[in-house]
Amino acid sequence: MKKILVTNDDGVHAPGLEALIQGLSGLGEIIAVVPNQERSSASHSLTLHHPLRVTRVRKDIYVTTGTPSDCVIIGMMEILKEKVDLVVSGINNGPNLGDDVTYSGTVAAGIEATLRGALSFAVSVASFRACRYDAAAGFAGRLAGYVLKKGLPEGTFLNVNVPNIRPAAIKGVQITRMGKRIYRDEMVRRRDPRGGTYYWIGGKEPSAEKGSGTDCAAVARGWISVTPLQLDLTDYKSIKGLRNWRIKYP
Amino acid sequence: MKKILVTNDDGVHAPGLEALIQGLSGLGEIIAVVPNQERSSASHSLTLHHPLRVTRVRKDIYVTTGTPSDCVIIGMMEILKEKVDLVVSGINNGPNLGDDVTYSGTVAAGIEATLRGALSFAVSVASFRACRYDAAAGFAGRLAGYVLKKGLPEGTFLNVNVPNIRPAAIKGVQITRMGKRIYRDEMVRRRDPRGGTYYWIGGKEPSAEKGSGTDCAAVARGWISVTPLQLDLTDYKSIKGLRNWRIKYP
Repeated sequence: MKKILVTNDDGVHAPGLEALIQGLSGLGEIIAVVPNQERSSASHSLTLHHPLRVTRVRKDIYVTTGTPSDCVIIGMMEILKEKVDLVVSGINNGPNLGDDVTYSGTVAAGIEATLRGALSFAVSVASFRACRYDAAAGFAGRLAGYVLKKGLPEGTFLNVNVPNIRPAAIKGVQITRMGKRIYRDEMVRRRDPRGGTYYWIGGKEPSAEKGSGTDCAAVARGWISVTPLQLDLTDYKSIKGLRNWRIKYP
Repeated sequence: MKKILVTNDDGVHAPGLEALIQGLSGLGEIIAVVPNQERSSASHSLTLHHPLRVTRVRKDIYVTTGTPSDCVIIGMMEILKEKVDLVVSGINNGPNLGDDVTYSGTVAAGIEATLRGALSFAVSVASFRACRYDAAAGFAGRLAGYVLKKGLPEGTFLNVNVPNIRPAAIKGVQITRMGKRIYRDEMVRRRDPRGGTYYWIGGKEPSAEKGSGTDCAAVARGWISVTPLQLDLTDYKSIKGLRNWRIKYP
């Protein structure tokens, strides 16, 4: 029987977790290892300086005090000691489109699983408002079947974003590239009750350059976006130009 | 005069900070905005759920309660309100080679700066033991001069690793690609004084596949490694194969 590890960055109480478990049911044994609280924007951080606690809260759900990446490590090394066939992260309440992936705990879980040699994908509903999970859950189950059957290239995983609309309204599935996000962060500066200054990173929802073929464009037009992402960040195009600098040391 | 923002993930007390400030001196106005404690493996995490405090501890050094990415945002938006010409992250005590970059707070600061349109590089001394910073500081100053003069392609930044040897022993500079790390993590399971179980992510130093042209190979052989990294994680080679799956939804 296939062994599927589920994690997320919205924590154990997120409705997307139960929806994902349901969406994957029938494909194998499903075990969830998730943070005890929301860990959005946790990115690929690891907890190296503190001990981690793990509590089994249901037959198929373990809760940890760590990040999504910690959950993948605990799930793969400690809980599902046998080979894990697939790691699915989500369903995230909020988009992971374009440059969002560099901040995302949901996507970081996919990176961690890929580093450890497991097949993996991350799935998000692309709305900052209350999300519905039916289409994302249904598609996650279907995609998991394909990935388990066909595999993925070494070092590659999938980042899935689903529009926040009813399943019947979805136009179809597009294989996309990462788009560009335009962040509109603000540093909010305030005074605390004792007169000290503090800052809070705030700002409006990011917008996107909706270039042709991007994840941002696909979701904006009502399609499910599936983007293959890789661990290798090398900008191969720049290597030759940098060699021409002929920079020397010592 | 050029404005250079310095940050790190080893915190304000790290010797690599002062070495980097010295290495860059003479190139422009240098302002450091750094975490108040070590933030290794913080990755590209942002502090969205807590307020951030900022304290000026020296004319040119600000300390924050945030991550390296938070420091870049605070430095660029709040402290150096004018255009920042260059963001340099480091000098990290420890390698950021191969897949290390996905965990690295040092590299994440470079990602954040690049997302915000600044030129940037990250610099690390590739040793898990006590590091010497003279070669890394000297090379950082030289590289900063090149980057300020020649620029970098949009969405690209540089990841620099320097061997932990005296400057005169360094063989030269190689422009490299990201190598593959082999992590040897262990989950250490222990009992606390009250009998509860806790876990700690431990393990040995990672090894590396020292493939030709990689950062890992260059540093192991005594060269300074400069790797151009990009924000776009798309695995373009896989797009066609995935389209051939012809996966449908609904």
